[in-house]
Amino acid sequence: MVFVTRKANFSASHRLFNPQWSDERNASMFGKCNNPNGHGHNYDIEVTVAGDPPPETGMVIDLKNLADIIEGELVDKVDHKHLNHDVDFLKGIIPTAENMAIAFWKILNPRITEGKLYSIRLFESPNNFVEYRGG
Amino acid sequence: MVFVTRKANFSASHRLFNPQWSDERNASMFGKCNNPNGHGHNYDIEVTVAGDPPPETGMVIDLKNLADIIEGELVDKVDHKHLNHDVDFLKGIIPTAENMAIAFWKILNPRITEGKLYSIRLFESPNNFVEYRGG
Amino acid sequence: MVFVTRKANFSASHRLFNPQWSDERNASMFGKCNNPNGHGHNYDIEVTVAGDPPPETGMVIDLKNLADIIEGELVDKVDHKHLNHDVDFLKGIIPTAENMAIAFWKILNPRITEGKLYSIRLFESPNNFVEYRGG
Amino acid sequence: MVFVTRKANFSASHRLFNPQWSDERNASMFGKCNNPNGHGHNYDIEVTVAGDPPPETGMVIDLKNLADIIEGELVDKVDHKHLNHDVDFLKGIIPTAENMAIAFWKILNPRITEGKLYSIRLFESPNNFVEYRGG
Amino acid sequence: MVFVTRKANFSASHRLFNPQWSDERNASMFGKCNNPNGHGHNYDIEVTVAGDPPPETGMVIDLKNLADIIEGELVDKVDHKHLNHDVDFLKGIIPTAENMAIAFWKILNPRITEGKLYSIRLFESPNNFVEYRGG
Amino acid sequence: MVFVTRKANFSASHRLFNPQWSDERNASMFGKCNNPNGHGHNYDIEVTVAGDPPPETGMVIDLKNLADIIEGELVDKVDHKHLNHDVDFLKGIIPTAENMAIAFWKILNPRITEGKLYSIRLFESPNNFVEYRGG
Repeated sequence: MVFVTRKANFSASHRLFNPQWSDERNASMFGKCNNPNGHGHNYDIEVTVAGDPPPETGMVIDLKNLADIIEGELVDKVDHKHLNHDVDFLKGIIPTAENMAIAFWKILNPRITEGKLYSIRLFESPNNFVEYRGG
Repeated sequence: MVFVTRKANFSASHRLFNPQWSDERNASMFGKCNNPNGHGHNYDIEVTVAGDPPPETGMVIDLKNLADIIEGELVDKVDHKHLNHDVDFLKGIIPTAENMAIAFWKILNPRITEGKLYSIRLFESPNNFVEYRGG
Repeated sequence: MVFVTRKANFSASHRLFNPQWSDERNASMFGKCNNPNGHGHNYDIEVTVAGDPPPETGMVIDLKNLADIIEGELVDKVDHKHLNHDVDFLKGIIPTAENMAIAFWKILNPRITEGKLYSIRLFESPNNFVEYRGG
Repeated sequence: MVFVTRKANFSASHRLFNPQWSDERNASMFGKCNNPNGHGHNYDIEVTVAGDPPPETGMVIDLKNLADIIEGELVDKVDHKHLNHDVDFLKGIIPTAENMAIAFWKILNPRITEGKLYSIRLFESPNNFVEYRGG
Repeated sequence: MVFVTRKANFSASHRLFNPQWSDERNASMFGKCNNPNGHGHNYDIEVTVAGDPPPETGMVIDLKNLADIIEGELVDKVDHKHLNHDVDFLKGIIPTAENMAIAFWKILNPRITEGKLYSIRLFESPNNFVEYRGG
Repeated sequence: MVFVTRKANFSASHRLFNPQWSDERNASMFGKCNNPNGHGHNYDIEVTVAGDPPPETGMVIDLKNLADIIEGELVDKVDHKHLNHDVDFLKGIIPTAENMAIAFWKILNPRITEGKLYSIRLFESPNNFVEYRGG
């Protein structure tokens, strides 16, 4: 089995905020990530697909197909957007990197039909990243 | 003369928008950077100071002092903020990287008293950056 | 004046070879870069444009325009190509990074009508890069 | 158990091409990677060895030995080469990153006698990489 | 389960040296890493914590808490230090990257009470890094 | 004129310390960089040579020659060394990045006979670097 990874990136804004909590509790839990007007990041995403490369192509998955899926199903929907307000599939979710990686998995997993989705890594800033390998 | 550079970074959101223009003209000029709810970036900043290192210290500028100036005068005011709404010294300016670099120069230049501020580089995304050298 | 830089990248193969020299002299001068079947690189290119950002846009050059020029006039012509055989504007030139940067300047300079082309940097490998600022 | 990783890099050209297929099918499957004159990359390779560091050295494997094995058995054979034509151990294989990682494993695995080869990662471009952990 | 990683860095000097061996055997085993006056590195460290993000916060671990633990328990004790002489918890250990990662695990593991420490990666130089996932 | 840059790196330890000052004044000026047992860095160095590429080679300077000069005259003398104690050409100099760049210029400038040495950049840590252009 070989693991094939494709990277992409997008720029978005968000606010960490639990609507069921008071402003004080939100501020105390989320700190500067709770700023009412939001803040933003250049996110990097790494999508890893696992499989056996068939001899006639030598490819686990056609990387052009994988790039198109990531671009069309994911990047186009979150790039230059406010993650709390502008993205249907993130509605009702606190947009932490953890929750975003899980939501991205749900979007991408049914679309990947060559190989098998193995993991999604989401880099939020130079010092923070998360990885989700499915449930 | 030696050029000494200190890097820092911050995460912020912004919207490119000229309030004197119609929505249509704004959308046509600024494209996806005009998204009404804004979007965001991890910004990197490089501040370069030029000078002759005196023999008794070998340092153009004490890097701890330079780091403290960048942090206190700049990063604390823009990190995890919305640049259009939350930053006094950016009020009335379209927050493009060009305009931000010029505004940062005005903030930092009077504070740097060892050596001489030579340039400010601002990286907005992995593929875009600007440099301003005063003047 | 502000300097605005846009990055792009492409993957290509090449061979360093002077057709007016003997094989021995070519091998001696260009070493392993003279391998008859060629070798290749992931090239990064940084295009810097200088100008004053007008107040109504805050932009020296519309980065989407600049990106489109780099993509359409340059990257599409060299990406996934053999630089000695497949690229019209490199015919008759030894494709060193130096010569490529000069050739890229000639292609891009007439196309850049907002601001003024200031420099082209070409990164050939993690340890080698060149910069050309015009003649 | 500790995992120790050593990086190396090389520059090479290749062409994705299945000799048993028509030109049309090759072009349709491999797209611009099928360019007849080939194209190239700066490849990065990460070799990971797993083991328990003995108390008298604190090292799973002598990194100088590991670096010499990677250089002598692998990098010297592929650096500044055309992978389809110049490399004996890739003959008859379509040189996708997947197939190259598997071939590199076969070369390196018998040479690593301190610790145990755990994985080979091959980065083909800034946005694509593969990992192989053996069969 | 989601894996959350926080990065930090520090600069330190060290010498690879087994006090129970002769100078000759030390020099032969550790090569230039055995230089009597020592040498140094900018170390990067990645600390990964695994867990399920609870719905009310969406966070496996509060990254500010994790950053404070790494800074207070680890970075403050090793940054700008000589690892053989200045660090209590490394006394009697040959400060290879392998041994340092194991020692760091022992320091951090009891402090991490949200989620579960999953791995520690230590980058010693651009070409060498180690990972430890506990015993 | 084209600017050609070659990168190299080395790992070394140092201590910022003025022997003509008291311990208190040294500690106050140099802070944690004054730690008596020293600390260390992975240094990156970029050497830039300017010139016109002659048509028959297309190269300002043979990069293999430049790499050999950097390796033989510089890297071999500072790599895995203590800069205060082990390096002849740094004797009597406080080994700040500024002073090191000036000292490196004096070493390299007479050795570079193709093109003209234009600048030396020395990166001491991810956040600090200096540049010296002679003179």
